[in-house]
Amino acid sequence: MAKAIHMMIRVLDEQRSLDFYRRAFGLQIAQRVDFDDFSLIYLSNPETEFELELTVNKDQAEPYELGNGYGHMAVSVDDLDAEHARFTAEALEPDPLKGLSHGEFSARYFFVTDPDGYRIEVLQRGGRFL
Amino acid sequence: MAKAIHMMIRVLDEQRSLDFYRRAFGLQIAQRVDFDDFSLIYLSNPETEFELELTVNKDQAEPYELGNGYGHMAVSVDDLDAEHARFTAEALEPDPLKGLSHGEFSARYFFVTDPDGYRIEVLQRGGRFL
Repeated sequence: MAKAIHMMIRVLDEQRSLDFYRRAFGLQIAQRVDFDDFSLIYLSNPETEFELELTVNKDQAEPYELGNGYGHMAVSVDDLDAEHARFTAEALEPDPLKGLSHGEFSARYFFVTDPDGYRIEVLQRGGRFL
Repeated sequence: MAKAIHMMIRVLDEQRSLDFYRRAFGLQIAQRVDFDDFSLIYLSNPETEFELELTVNKDQAEPYELGNGYGHMAVSVDDLDAEHARFTAEALEPDPLKGLSHGEFSARYFFVTDPDGYRIEVLQRGGRFL
């Protein structure tokens, strides 16, 4: 059966994105493949096999258009409040902490925006979000 | 440390998307939360904890704009050729099989497009793509 193993986003500035994803989520380069016109960079951390693939197109000068369809990648963390404080202290500019609940469904989270404008949801681990 | 747990896409027609993701990847509803203005649907299969979250905004009438930044979700499968044949037989309209290699990096894959236009890469399991 199909197993979800990564998602890919195109980014404008490789080093800027590497810095962000390392500082924000501990993601490091698992593999980097450099072609003539583009590079593929697979980022991972020890928490999951699921990777984030960055594509850097070498002739891309304009910011990518992100549209209004794709939403976000989500990560879970052990201590949401501590992470929010850390993001703030490290000038990662997190959005405010929020909550959403409906019946037995409950989520505490904040969003943060990566250097290209992609949104990432940081969720308190628990319930649906393990 | 942060653990990647899901990605979210906005879809126009819930049933159309549920049918596609079930037939293509065996993804079933793990949880569905229905708010006044929108629904959140978490899809999963037994292969991984990573989930696909669909957001259905109830007042959305126009197709979503997908932009040119977000790339794809990728899944790995045991037998790429068999999956390509199955997708073809089931009228899921997969793109042709392709290969990409560079030094020790090697990938065999095909792409398929979901009902909203999101691209999914189906990769032969192995190497980087376990």
